[in-house]
Amino acid sequence: MSNTLIWRDGRWQADACWPANDRGLQYGDGLFETLRMAADGSLPLWPLHRARLLKGLVALDFPVNTLALIEAAIAQAPRTGSAVKLVVTRGAGPRGYLAPVEPEIELQWQVFNAPDWALQRKPEGFHCEFSEVRLAPQPLLAGFKHLNRLEQVLIRNRMPGGSDEAIVLDADDWVIEGAMSNLFVCEQGQWLTPDLSRCGVDGVIRRWLMGQLSVQETAISPDRLLAADAILLTNSLNGLQAVRSIGAKRYDSPKEIVVLQQELQELFA
Amino acid sequence: MSNTLIWRDGRWQADACWPANDRGLQYGDGLFETLRMAADGSLPLWPLHRARLLKGLVALDFPVNTLALIEAAIAQAPRTGSAVKLVVTRGAGPRGYLAPVEPEIELQWQVFNAPDWALQRKPEGFHCEFSEVRLAPQPLLAGFKHLNRLEQVLIRNRMPGGSDEAIVLDADDWVIEGAMSNLFVCEQGQWLTPDLSRCGVDGVIRRWLMGQLSVQETAISPDRLLAADAILLTNSLNGLQAVRSIGAKRYDSPKEIVVLQQELQELFA
Repeated sequence: MSNTLIWRDGRWQADACWPANDRGLQYGDGLFETLRMAADGSLPLWPLHRARLLKGLVALDFPVNTLALIEAAIAQAPRTGSAVKLVVTRGAGPRGYLAPVEPEIELQWQVFNAPDWALQRKPEGFHCEFSEVRLAPQPLLAGFKHLNRLEQVLIRNRMPGGSDEAIVLDADDWVIEGAMSNLFVCEQGQWLTPDLSRCGVDGVIRRWLMGQLSVQETAISPDRLLAADAILLTNSLNGLQAVRSIGAKRYDSPKEIVVLQQELQELFA
Repeated sequence: MSNTLIWRDGRWQADACWPANDRGLQYGDGLFETLRMAADGSLPLWPLHRARLLKGLVALDFPVNTLALIEAAIAQAPRTGSAVKLVVTRGAGPRGYLAPVEPEIELQWQVFNAPDWALQRKPEGFHCEFSEVRLAPQPLLAGFKHLNRLEQVLIRNRMPGGSDEAIVLDADDWVIEGAMSNLFVCEQGQWLTPDLSRCGVDGVIRRWLMGQLSVQETAISPDRLLAADAILLTNSLNGLQAVRSIGAKRYDSPKEIVVLQQELQELFA
């Protein structure tokens, strides 16, 4: 089930029609967030989504009042379904790359049913393969979820059959993330996660987990990943999931995962 | 004047409504071309646009019949106006990055009036400044015009007032292109143009000019650019334009420009 609402004239309207000249379509000039809802329709991790949205709005030179507009709209959004994709774009404008100084922001609220948490769907853990697609380091666009996602489309399209997730490196051979997850690596009891200052998405569950565990952000090579004791994946819809294998290499499930996933689920109960 | 047509049910329909769940909007999963029309409504450089579109369709794993669909639609397009932006997207699909195997391609035909050729509008040549924004090298997306254009939006938004074009480097400090042009550099009578195998757009006028002049594709450093005798910019709408200055450095107008621009204009007469 998916149900698309568009913010128009100060209210959400069921509409499948997006402006054809919108800069989100023409240039990918916008942002998105995928959020799980709690049973009562609240958005438990909204502060973390909000912080990432704000980072993106600043990075893309959106007007400072855009976040207030988004929050006012979200306050009026229906809380049906169990997950939502929020899309924010710089709206229509004259032809050309130059953004209007006072854009008419467009918002989309796409409600859908969240899948079960990954640990319930696939308790044996994920099988992964390294992606052949490398991320291009671009510090100006790193960390937030903008609408330029062709690298992710290529990574997903080229994922080998039978793998649940891809391990994605950057052009300099550093491990960055999964196609749709962040990565955490356990080395003799110490948790590490890739530094995302040059590319990759700084996921909301990644941020949440960094508040639960002592985690070091650092550069991680493929060899170091393969030598790790355990690997954890995080994603807003999947929650926490263990990596069972990367290629022929097998991993134990990290002992912390059950308790951490339980804590995460309680936020959404 | 801008007039947007959408390809629907086998014909072009005047419509400002684009599907809200289109992958072009959600991920930038598509391509575009900006074309000048001749006075008789023909598209003189279509073979070069077509070659670039095909490169993009292959790079993004679009179905092989997409180009035939595009050409059939273009054959029916009205030839009002003097320029057009053609947008091609992978259409709607289930949620997630994975592209549908048989996508319902969406096409947009945005007609507008082309500006006068740059050499007529600004005969003294363009003043340029180096952009602070660096292009991220991504060989998988280099050369063609996809819908992930946030780098160009940032470059254009941050262009210093009073400059007509920005000189854009990649992350390794190589000169690549302008915000909306390709670059040609004259060194003691020899023409050079940046190698675009890692980033940048391989423009249609660039390709045309490489058939008119003997040009060497090579890596060009900012110092080499600044030491050049003359610099030419190319763009589908602007045609050929000389660089008058980059910062405080001044250049002569290349002697070939008038004849070459005349030859280009004759194609569109």
